[in-house]
Amino acid sequence: MSGQEISHPLVKDGWFREINHMWPGQAMTLQVKNILYAGKSKFQDVLVFESETYGRVLVLDGAIQCTERDEFSYQEMIAHIALNSHPNPKKVLVIGGGDGGVLREVVKHDCVEEAVLCDIDEDVLKVSREHLPEMAEGLNDPKVKIHIGDGFQFLKDYKDTFDAIITDSSDPDGPAEALFQKPYFELLSDALRDGGVITTQAECIWLHLGVIGDVLKAVKASFANVRYAYTTIPTYPSGQIGFVVASKNPVIDLSKPVRNWTPEQERKLCKYYNSNIHSAAFVLPNFAREVVEKSLSA
Amino acid sequence: MSGQEISHPLVKDGWFREINHMWPGQAMTLQVKNILYAGKSKFQDVLVFESETYGRVLVLDGAIQCTERDEFSYQEMIAHIALNSHPNPKKVLVIGGGDGGVLREVVKHDCVEEAVLCDIDEDVLKVSREHLPEMAEGLNDPKVKIHIGDGFQFLKDYKDTFDAIITDSSDPDGPAEALFQKPYFELLSDALRDGGVITTQAECIWLHLGVIGDVLKAVKASFANVRYAYTTIPTYPSGQIGFVVASKNPVIDLSKPVRNWTPEQERKLCKYYNSNIHSAAFVLPNFAREVVEKSLSA
Repeated sequence: MSGQEISHPLVKDGWFREINHMWPGQAMTLQVKNILYAGKSKFQDVLVFESETYGRVLVLDGAIQCTERDEFSYQEMIAHIALNSHPNPKKVLVIGGGDGGVLREVVKHDCVEEAVLCDIDEDVLKVSREHLPEMAEGLNDPKVKIHIGDGFQFLKDYKDTFDAIITDSSDPDGPAEALFQKPYFELLSDALRDGGVITTQAECIWLHLGVIGDVLKAVKASFANVRYAYTTIPTYPSGQIGFVVASKNPVIDLSKPVRNWTPEQERKLCKYYNSNIHSAAFVLPNFAREVVEKSLSA
Repeated sequence: MSGQEISHPLVKDGWFREINHMWPGQAMTLQVKNILYAGKSKFQDVLVFESETYGRVLVLDGAIQCTERDEFSYQEMIAHIALNSHPNPKKVLVIGGGDGGVLREVVKHDCVEEAVLCDIDEDVLKVSREHLPEMAEGLNDPKVKIHIGDGFQFLKDYKDTFDAIITDSSDPDGPAEALFQKPYFELLSDALRDGGVITTQAECIWLHLGVIGDVLKAVKASFANVRYAYTTIPTYPSGQIGFVVASKNPVIDLSKPVRNWTPEQERKLCKYYNSNIHSAAFVLPNFAREVVEKSLSA
């Protein structure tokens, strides 16, 4: 394709605009240096571009999934909040996350012996291996096993197997829809060992409090201990994204890590996560806390 | 002006794009219902539009200052972090903040007897009174005194006068430039009584760590106790904004409020601020903590 310019309907006049009915009336806009890949997979529209100031950007069905400049915030927080809420996670499952970024974080924990990835869309892995090497490196770790297929179906074969399951999904409006509903969280609970923990991508308090409330209720039906946390990330809609964090252990305080790296290790391993921000991530502004508390006490 | 459509160069095809050299390669984009005001004041370009999903929006020199949907986060945090870090603030000064939003928060503290506003641009107050009544209500409180003029010059007349000074400025690239520099913080320190506290708008860790480091060093030259905190807000660049928080009291831990509302009062008075989020606001991700700590220990 050298010499040929690739085009995409969401890139106009040199800018990508994230216009989407899931966040009406607003759009993050990134200046595009050049488009590296544009195609349709079996499941979704896939776009990778080199931006002027955010490095390479992966877009699925028009929604930004990650940029090289800020992806570490999301990947570190969704992975380490889960894994540091378990005393000794040995076997970890990632549903979605085909770019490899969450795996890259999971294998930083020496106690993890096996990290399984199940993503529905092979093209996301291919495109990441080619264009997003800093994330895709997670796919190549010797501890990693990769399964291409539907996460929902995959889980049906596993009982009492994993210590942590991280759902790194796209938004509920697309192939990931089932990953936000009650039957999915029942499967997650069944696939976990005693004391097992999950984190799951759970949208933004500034945009989707209704969705967040519904997901919390759905998780609560299968987990004794459910909380909500968030991280800041400029290129997700409204600049932040949250996680439902849940454990089969009813008494653990999920906002307090049960394992810690040393400050030196934290600095070396993480650009965003530290044990203090693990706790701070659970502290919500009043307007969101009210909805979260109501959903969890219902 | 009824029947006549107002235009502005930053509104095209029904969208406002916040393209600015201060955050190259990225732009928040808001869908515009209609433009309510577009004009040039003595100091800056002033635009107010009704957006599709963020209520009314005030834009100065092309940079979003506040939207009705999310302004409470910024106004509450910059005001209450300052005032709840002082045991009994009676006299408060706000530099900038002509929209009235910070004043609205300041006068929620019963102990405050007088709140003085000094904004350089009279047109911002006029436009807010006409188009942003939920913020401008702060201008009308009986405790409030308004001075139109340069904050830097104004401060020269006051020694040992205020318990808290909040600098609600626009970005350093414009009329607010002097409010980010060492001589300004010397004036703030002189204008404060013993134990006095300041908060000052101090940009975003994802965009302006260099500026933040410089401001911290500048504040440190005049204050014994300096910290950095932040809040999330979708319509500021990269979805968050920070504050330098400083006190003349060298031993107080600024991340712990010295006064608290009851939980019931907090819920009634604030949509964002609570005593836990006051503390959480000081917890930074590693990449930012490193720069902040380095600047403060230099």
